[in-house]
Amino acid sequence: MIEIITIGDEILIGQIVDTNSAWMAVELNKAGFQLAQITSVHDEADHIKKALDEALLRADVVLMTGGLGPTKDDITKQTLCEYFGTKLVFNPEVLENIQQIYHTRQSVMNELTKSQAMVPEKCTVIQNRAGSAPITWFEKEGKVIVSMPGVPLEMKKVMSEEIIPRLQKHFKTPAIIHKTVQVYGIPESQLALRLTEWENSLPEYLHLAYLPNFGIVKLRISGAGQDKYKLEEAINQQVETLKSILGESIFAYEDKPVEKIIYEKLKSSGLTVSTAESCTGGNIAHRLTLIPGISDCFKGTVVAYHNELKINMLGVSAQDIEQYGAVSSQVATQMAEGARKVMQTDLAVATTGIAGPTGGTPEKPVGAIWISVCSRERTITRSYVFGNFARENFIERSTMAALMMLNELIG
Amino acid sequence: MIEIITIGDEILIGQIVDTNSAWMAVELNKAGFQLAQITSVHDEADHIKKALDEALLRADVVLMTGGLGPTKDDITKQTLCEYFGTKLVFNPEVLENIQQIYHTRQSVMNELTKSQAMVPEKCTVIQNRAGSAPITWFEKEGKVIVSMPGVPLEMKKVMSEEIIPRLQKHFKTPAIIHKTVQVYGIPESQLALRLTEWENSLPEYLHLAYLPNFGIVKLRISGAGQDKYKLEEAINQQVETLKSILGESIFAYEDKPVEKIIYEKLKSSGLTVSTAESCTGGNIAHRLTLIPGISDCFKGTVVAYHNELKINMLGVSAQDIEQYGAVSSQVATQMAEGARKVMQTDLAVATTGIAGPTGGTPEKPVGAIWISVCSRERTITRSYVFGNFARENFIERSTMAALMMLNELIG
Repeated sequence: MIEIITIGDEILIGQIVDTNSAWMAVELNKAGFQLAQITSVHDEADHIKKALDEALLRADVVLMTGGLGPTKDDITKQTLCEYFGTKLVFNPEVLENIQQIYHTRQSVMNELTKSQAMVPEKCTVIQNRAGSAPITWFEKEGKVIVSMPGVPLEMKKVMSEEIIPRLQKHFKTPAIIHKTVQVYGIPESQLALRLTEWENSLPEYLHLAYLPNFGIVKLRISGAGQDKYKLEEAINQQVETLKSILGESIFAYEDKPVEKIIYEKLKSSGLTVSTAESCTGGNIAHRLTLIPGISDCFKGTVVAYHNELKINMLGVSAQDIEQYGAVSSQVATQMAEGARKVMQTDLAVATTGIAGPTGGTPEKPVGAIWISVCSRERTITRSYVFGNFARENFIERSTMAALMMLNELIG
Repeated sequence: MIEIITIGDEILIGQIVDTNSAWMAVELNKAGFQLAQITSVHDEADHIKKALDEALLRADVVLMTGGLGPTKDDITKQTLCEYFGTKLVFNPEVLENIQQIYHTRQSVMNELTKSQAMVPEKCTVIQNRAGSAPITWFEKEGKVIVSMPGVPLEMKKVMSEEIIPRLQKHFKTPAIIHKTVQVYGIPESQLALRLTEWENSLPEYLHLAYLPNFGIVKLRISGAGQDKYKLEEAINQQVETLKSILGESIFAYEDKPVEKIIYEKLKSSGLTVSTAESCTGGNIAHRLTLIPGISDCFKGTVVAYHNELKINMLGVSAQDIEQYGAVSSQVATQMAEGARKVMQTDLAVATTGIAGPTGGTPEKPVGAIWISVCSRERTITRSYVFGNFARENFIERSTMAALMMLNELIG
């Protein structure tokens, strides 16, 4: 059992959201460790020590983040010295590491930064290759206590490269294998019902997790065992069973965002894509352009929020807008086909819907959307109603639906 | 002192990031309460009781979220019955509330949902107007323990409308006043240096918080006291001093996203805007279209990721792209002016830069960007270098810079 203690006033006044803990939880889980508790406390010596006491009653490992800056409000290092009855000593290797980092960044070190090279005497020091605060690893009565920086980039690097491998070695953990299958179009609760029987029949050494996100549910099968090869075989067999239950609803057999999957398919087939967005307001383009290298395949977008842009820039028929409304199958289709023509791409995707909170009618309520995708040979146009969610939620769900249709079109 | 206990396996396996706690921390802070600790535990009776015991040693109020679903893995309600030595009884008002909610959603209740109307006998029940799980409020030896749903929408509604007002009444808290001043263009560490003297001179009953976000720093001055009027006057005086120190770097005297500020200015002056985006890939449009009502002012966007779209759709000179490069003052300016013309808007904003991770040169490194904003009378074009951040970070910073320039142009 592992516990996390995050140290820092900024979390307790809500200045930052603690995303570190969720990331650590995922990575520890993948490595075969269970998390018992996450505790966030102030930069306050007594409170930190109390939290450590309590955590060590329950867990074999306590991972602490934060409170390692050079300013006087950061006190984790001194507190750990008091807790373990040791003192700070100068460590030349840490200083060298900091000097290297500052050299790369072309920055100049000040006295405060140099003080980072003072570390507790009775501990293992692990170098921080991404920042100036060293990582300290204590052992006490068979238990492990690690203190590392709260800066996400630094924490992630040292967790992946140093802490998790050391923990696996220290506790001689078995091999852990994960396989993720991604499902779209079945709500989590329905999916759970359909999978109940199969889930109950899973052997004890396999574990299933549901990870839902805006219409996608990732199913992660994890297994722990001594024989990596047998484990892999057992998991692959279960994936085959899952395939026979869910069929077409599975769109990926790996843990990868759909926009990355789309990008790889486009790139390997040399196809280009454009988007024509009304209610998604550029979010499909935004999601695609977060992928490095996407400029090979993504040419551009027309966000046609006003109808005159749908007409003038995408060639949508003004008469059809008049007759069927801007949120209609006809307009979505013409937007997609217009985008493909105007931006000269092989494929295009278009959205037109009612994001709310106002603008809905009984016939076309807030949350109603038409999405169209097209290639030279084929056009698919569908309507969805995403219910009266918050505006942001509607935009994310619509974006996901559009990306899924694009993925389906590419095949 | 208040503590938060979040209950649910999904946080400890990293399935969800706990954004609730940060939101609650901010709101509690604003209402004059301090948060001592945040604890996340599994849906496990003994662990929940232990966490409650420990929290009640330190705090006067424990706010618990989660574990209130109707399925068997959610056990918070039963655990609280055991903890407070009471039992579940049927509450007709809760059932009525659930029935109303289901009626509005046009959904059908099942047996599981009906079980939500069973509540602990010895507690105050607060209706959940956004979901089916009721809120329970316990008092014990002068301390308050509240259990509420973990669904963010439901938690936020009940916290704002019920829990915080009741806590303020219960603990007779003094008046709390906040005033937020937003600064752009000065990094947090530099800002702190410039404000050191002023900050040290603040009277003890006023508190300053720095809230940084992609180039913006919000400075929040908070004060607590019995005389609301005097407090307000004291804070306003400090804001005047701040104004004299920071001058033009302050762009807002209220806590509102810049896109909302832009929207309100556009709306009141009847102006329209369009965007022409290269490296921001539609994110400026996305941010603007998150604002309800923006369709009054925002007409559309051309995301011109490929140069041919810059030329064909925005009228950028092909020769200038050849001569100065796509990331240049000339191209940014022509994109903005082109967008204004093509989409027939009063204002336009354009971006062209290098999001990375590849594509940089010594002259134009990854992170370099040109941004241009224009109206009929005026064009402003500037370059920034946002350093070698992660791609996502660069896009957010660029978007913020573009929105700030647009805000500046509108005046």
